[in-house]
Amino acid sequence: MSEGHMFDVHFDAVGVAVGRMRNEVTLTASTPFQSVNVLATDEGPFQGGEGTAPTPLEFFLTGLVGCLMTQIRVFARKMRVDVTDLKVHCRAEWAARKGELGPYEGFPKGFTVDVELASGAPAEDVARLIEASKRACFVEQTLAVANTVTHRLRINEGDWTDA
Amino acid sequence: MSEGHMFDVHFDAVGVAVGRMRNEVTLTASTPFQSVNVLATDEGPFQGGEGTAPTPLEFFLTGLVGCLMTQIRVFARKMRVDVTDLKVHCRAEWAARKGELGPYEGFPKGFTVDVELASGAPAEDVARLIEASKRACFVEQTLAVANTVTHRLRINEGDWTDA
Repeated sequence: MSEGHMFDVHFDAVGVAVGRMRNEVTLTASTPFQSVNVLATDEGPFQGGEGTAPTPLEFFLTGLVGCLMTQIRVFARKMRVDVTDLKVHCRAEWAARKGELGPYEGFPKGFTVDVELASGAPAEDVARLIEASKRACFVEQTLAVANTVTHRLRINEGDWTDA
Repeated sequence: MSEGHMFDVHFDAVGVAVGRMRNEVTLTASTPFQSVNVLATDEGPFQGGEGTAPTPLEFFLTGLVGCLMTQIRVFARKMRVDVTDLKVHCRAEWAARKGELGPYEGFPKGFTVDVELASGAPAEDVARLIEASKRACFVEQTLAVANTVTHRLRINEGDWTDA
């Protein structure tokens, strides 16, 4: 247990492919609260989907923007900095280049996040609130580091192998 | 323009804070296709929300799982590897530690992704498909590197400052 440890967050997401490109994802939170939700993604004609739901990238960006906004409001209360009229604008860019193994590979090109709000607090207090919120936003902190994503693969109900 | 450049992806996400913890996020894709969608996030009682929508982390994980699943199905067709019964299970963990500026800071602890599918193709072809799909999945490739997220802040409709 690291020094200063306060709480853990643990989610399981199980996606099942249905239709042409639609995925139905069941999300189970086990700590620090318990919940189960289902969200669906799809693709438009560009990727051969039927447009029954937004695309995965839209869910990803909603997670990024929503996480920071939530953190700002939670910390505004805890740090006693009043905040109203909060609006966040994120621009996200990726590029696809010719791939070695497959048709193409993906690369993030950049993320900019503009925060607008109204407050009666001194500007330096608001700036400290935003910085603290960035550091606490799980999605932003995930983007800020090179994460190892571990994969396993199971074909035709055989054994699990590392992938 | 980098060597091997194939296409760009550009999204804008604008979130507006409403209610206690609810955020309404308008997502606009400008390339390689055009679309506008609205997704809402909320929090449960743990963070002082009203539970009108799933949490930002659930959107984030749906983006991760959905992106990889879509990529596997798109590339299965392009690489001529048949895939059915696709299911992906992602476990995601974060920790919160005592913060210097705010009440706490967030840290990703790990992501594991298990892929199950049925296929009549040789196992090595399926493994190559999964590896190619990981490299093309924009969300996975974003998680794999340390991204710079640039912030600006505007208080009370004043000037924009770096944050």
